Amino acid sequence: MTEQLPRMLRTDARHNRDRVLEAARALFAERGLDVTMREIARRAEVGPATLYRRFPTKQALVDEAFAEERRRCQQILEDGSADPDPWRGFCSVVERTIVLNVRNQGFVDAFLSVNPPQEAFTAYRSSQLRMFAELSGRAMEAGGLRRDFVIDDFVLVLQAVRGLSTTPPAQRTAAARRLAALAIDAFRASDANARLPRPAPLAAGMLSVAGAVPAR
Amino acid sequence: MTEQLPRMLRTDARHNRDRVLEAARALFAERGLDVTMREIARRAEVGPATLYRRFPTKQALVDEAFAEERRRCQQILEDGSADPDPWRGFCSVVERTIVLNVRNQGFVDAFLSVNPPQEAFTAYRSSQLRMFAELSGRAMEAGGLRRDFVIDDFVLVLQAVRGLSTTPPAQRTAAARRLAALAIDAFRASDANARLPRPAPLAAGMLSVAGAVPAR
Repeated sequence: MTEQLPRMLRTDARHNRDRVLEAARALFAERGLDVTMREIARRAEVGPATLYRRFPTKQALVDEAFAEERRRCQQILEDGSADPDPWRGFCSVVERTIVLNVRNQGFVDAFLSVNPPQEAFTAYRSSQLRMFAELSGRAMEAGGLRRDFVIDDFVLVLQAVRGLSTTPPAQRTAAARRLAALAIDAFRASDANARLPRPAPLAAGMLSVAGAVPAR
Repeated sequence: MTEQLPRMLRTDARHNRDRVLEAARALFAERGLDVTMREIARRAEVGPATLYRRFPTKQALVDEAFAEERRRCQQILEDGSADPDPWRGFCSVVERTIVLNVRNQGFVDAFLSVNPPQEAFTAYRSSQLRMFAELSGRAMEAGGLRRDFVIDDFVLVLQAVRGLSTTPPAQRTAAARRLAALAIDAFRASDANARLPRPAPLAAGMLSVAGAVPAR
């Protein structure tokens, strides 16, 4: 009986940890990162002490809650970069990232959050943006991507995707797919394209570490 | 002295009314329509009784607070419709509407809010969408606008604009202009355009009254 106690405690602890992560993921997805630790504890049905023992800061919780999303986005970028047709690879990254993120407002918040920085996201973001910049450069060279595209344009579209978070869930994926297809047509090289106004430096803090961003 | 009292009261009442409207406009612009009447009273520094005497319902307040925005959007549509080049008129409506609305989250909320309906917006929206549909039809006929464009695509872009509300104010207008230019390139007729997935029926409730919407 006494031998089983540590194992039961460990099982109980893991159970609490899973419940906290599940609650955090659901709340972050619904409402973004503005959720409080108190709300997460309440949804998970654990006391604040238990919550803070597992995750001493909200940042630690955000880092852990989105581990799976980070892996998925990483896979999307690896798949796109591996495509022998770089423009097709670029399009698949845009489409899949938009559809993935429309269901998870918090992940875009965390990814784009430079200040305060989300620790696990800083290195991840640099690496992702570097891969995307490299793919974009190749898609541009191949003639598919417009020459005046900058990485900030993709950041802009990801920010815009957050505006769809109040769309009824039943229509949200269809809305994201349509928006992604329109974004791809907007990014496509064409003689008819408008002269774009100067880009907003949205990702300035991120891009300083992103390496080879397609130049103008 | 006694003769002046009614006039002073009227002046005072008008002053309170202006303060309530100003507070409501600021809060709606910053945070959308989710603001409570209590918060509006607090920002306006009037008691709840005064607030409810002027505006018995939040809907009445929303209707009145956005009277100016409705006039501006109406003007944008009239200008666009009067342009002898319908595609250029269409582009000016897209660009000016996006730039106007990026600064006012509440107005897009109110415009798109079918349930619960905002009374002053119902007739206004029908009339606006009818004008925009008419202009879109002409822009399509003239060959500027892609054939598979539907009004819901513009609604989709307006919803997406709300995602920019957390962009720092100094960058927000530049971001809106860039997004508008990209949206126009996405809507432009081109042989290279992708085959779009089916549109999400975002504005179903609105469009039932909107009349001649470009088909498809």
